[in-house]
Amino acid sequence: MPVPDTIAHMAAAARAAALQLPAVPPHERSAALVHMAAAIRAGSATILAANAVDLAAAADTGLAPAMIDRLMLDEARVEAMAAGVEQVAGLPDPVGTVLETRHHANGMRIEKVRVGLGVLAVIYESRPNVTADAAALALKAGNAVILRGGSEARHSTTAIHAAMAAAVESAGMPAAVVQLVPGTDRADVVRLVQMEGLVDLVIPRGGEGLIRAVTEHARVPVLKHYKGVCHVYVDAGADAAMAREIVVNAKCQRPGVCNAMETLLVHADRARDLLPELGSALAEHDVVLRGDEVTCALVPGAQPATEDDWDREYLDLVAAVRVVDDLEQAIRHINTHGSGHSDVIVTADASAAARFARDVDSATVYVNASSRFTDGFEFGMGAEIGISTDKLHARGPCGVESLTTYKYVIHGTGQVRR
Amino acid sequence: MPVPDTIAHMAAAARAAALQLPAVPPHERSAALVHMAAAIRAGSATILAANAVDLAAAADTGLAPAMIDRLMLDEARVEAMAAGVEQVAGLPDPVGTVLETRHHANGMRIEKVRVGLGVLAVIYESRPNVTADAAALALKAGNAVILRGGSEARHSTTAIHAAMAAAVESAGMPAAVVQLVPGTDRADVVRLVQMEGLVDLVIPRGGEGLIRAVTEHARVPVLKHYKGVCHVYVDAGADAAMAREIVVNAKCQRPGVCNAMETLLVHADRARDLLPELGSALAEHDVVLRGDEVTCALVPGAQPATEDDWDREYLDLVAAVRVVDDLEQAIRHINTHGSGHSDVIVTADASAAARFARDVDSATVYVNASSRFTDGFEFGMGAEIGISTDKLHARGPCGVESLTTYKYVIHGTGQVRR
Repeated sequence: MPVPDTIAHMAAAARAAALQLPAVPPHERSAALVHMAAAIRAGSATILAANAVDLAAAADTGLAPAMIDRLMLDEARVEAMAAGVEQVAGLPDPVGTVLETRHHANGMRIEKVRVGLGVLAVIYESRPNVTADAAALALKAGNAVILRGGSEARHSTTAIHAAMAAAVESAGMPAAVVQLVPGTDRADVVRLVQMEGLVDLVIPRGGEGLIRAVTEHARVPVLKHYKGVCHVYVDAGADAAMAREIVVNAKCQRPGVCNAMETLLVHADRARDLLPELGSALAEHDVVLRGDEVTCALVPGAQPATEDDWDREYLDLVAAVRVVDDLEQAIRHINTHGSGHSDVIVTADASAAARFARDVDSATVYVNASSRFTDGFEFGMGAEIGISTDKLHARGPCGVESLTTYKYVIHGTGQVRR
Repeated sequence: MPVPDTIAHMAAAARAAALQLPAVPPHERSAALVHMAAAIRAGSATILAANAVDLAAAADTGLAPAMIDRLMLDEARVEAMAAGVEQVAGLPDPVGTVLETRHHANGMRIEKVRVGLGVLAVIYESRPNVTADAAALALKAGNAVILRGGSEARHSTTAIHAAMAAAVESAGMPAAVVQLVPGTDRADVVRLVQMEGLVDLVIPRGGEGLIRAVTEHARVPVLKHYKGVCHVYVDAGADAAMAREIVVNAKCQRPGVCNAMETLLVHADRARDLLPELGSALAEHDVVLRGDEVTCALVPGAQPATEDDWDREYLDLVAAVRVVDDLEQAIRHINTHGSGHSDVIVTADASAAARFARDVDSATVYVNASSRFTDGFEFGMGAEIGISTDKLHARGPCGVESLTTYKYVIHGTGQVRR
């Protein structure tokens, strides 16, 4: 008996649903999101019971505490999930916005109009809340979405999806607008990312392993970020107190995230003056330093760095430290070893700042502020689907607009080309 | 002896040159383009001599007349090529434009700034003028470019590139800003489109075969259009004279291009009234019709269409014709069989027009105008690098802006995240 192709059926259903979405007025899409939030709240007990099953299984398999924390839901987290969906509902509707209007000499009006991308596939790991976040953002942007959660969260994800799906249907929209891949077969992921013509965009959310696996097999476009090897460069013209505060914040405020500093670069003229102070400030936060020769000579306790350290995303209380000859060498180091995510210059020298901002080839470049602000909420987008280190389509923090495209609509009165 | 990896060296040189480009002021980039145009004019005799070598070889190998026409240069075509480069030089500079400014509550100013993508690879076939067009657009958008022309045009392409490269260098810019892959080894194309981290975007310009070959091997993003299966739908509310004029123009004005009509859809209520007239108007232009049953009954000489005809890009004086029950069926037909390129409704019914524009999932949707206008020049972009049927990054006619991305530059005064 042939195996039924679940993924192909889901993708075809999503495509059909996506083609119906432009006809749904924006207020009905927002209303569906409000229904979804209410359904998540109303289903809290069911969702928590399902989560308990996942947690018990995780305990049995000895999942790491950090992973268990990601997996765990409680009433506050369910409420936060519902509130997040409501917040997305309240964002300005991006669909239908006229982005540009051009007038042809022959009288045609050429409008560039924002529209949904079509069908999104979101592939994620252990955080159950991504189920609601991704569905809300996708729908707000006028898309159908196929969700694929991690196996360790499957009961939680299924319960959250069930609540949302019922709400979508009761709001009069096709159920296939929000689908969840059943089961945990890895082959489904490969199949999903190869649905050319049916899936428009794949968004992997998770560790580098997941993202590389998706990218390797994908035949549809992928919105991704690999890693955040973020730098703080303390320039010759840096204020010492500001440098210390930014360096400590960028490294220590939340070391396990992609916008945390991994490498500190210090101008040679300030090494003697600043490095011992920066080193001891970081040591107070238990940060281990891996430094070049000059750093090791100046900072007690710094370990010698190897070439590999310049490319490492530690996601931990570890930092690489290098003394650079000048601004140019700092820029070259970042463009060579960085991941194009978030890089900082600390300086009071406006021309050094302008040059750094111009020549560092990264999604976000900071002058005198912590890299930790690279985040859709902090950027005023209301929510984010991720942070892109790609250059095509969307770069940096990605809000609702990054889940849209545009079409040209030309209004004529019978014009033909001569 | 190991084979030297020419492509990897070229890509690394292009990347290094691209990283230097942000420091080149816009007026110097434009001046370099003006120099390039002058060098093409000054090199006209050399370019035409090289073209004569290609034409002689083409005659020997029995290249088709249409291909020879594409390959052929004369003084007027060389002048047009130089003028095209000058025209691009005169376009507004896209690089450095601040697209959005956001103000964080903590006082940070968040600017979204347009920047070049980095390194483009443009892979094309027999038209030598693409060498100049693509180089001009790439450089105007702040990018380095690696060109790979067709083997049948290699002497012409080499001569054009030599003129431009000398001009780029004499303008004080790195020569690696505009490189041409030497030789005609097909393996070079495969290598080029797999230069992840060095090449940012591949643009194939040519037939479906080239585009599929590039897409299949590419590991970097591709800006492409596969084909133009464009429709004209004549609605119940169409003006007969307007319908005739648009249908004839869309099919016949230049049948060999991607924005020409391939399929005519007619509302059932107007089949008797309009189809014979449309059929004879097309027949006057020697168009062969492949119709459904109703069409064949109403239009003398129409041949029966098969299912395949609905998906065909004829690029010739052939059109598929189908009678549809209503607007909805027309939209469904287009979304099923079209290529998302350019589709037209002819109607005086504003609500039918609005519904068609909203629900047809194509890059450009026309209300009462010919599909032949889908073109960067007609859209007021000044020039185009191609027409995208992708939805990500750039859709429809692609001008200079489609060769750019953006970065966020954050101006702070010491802000850290709490």
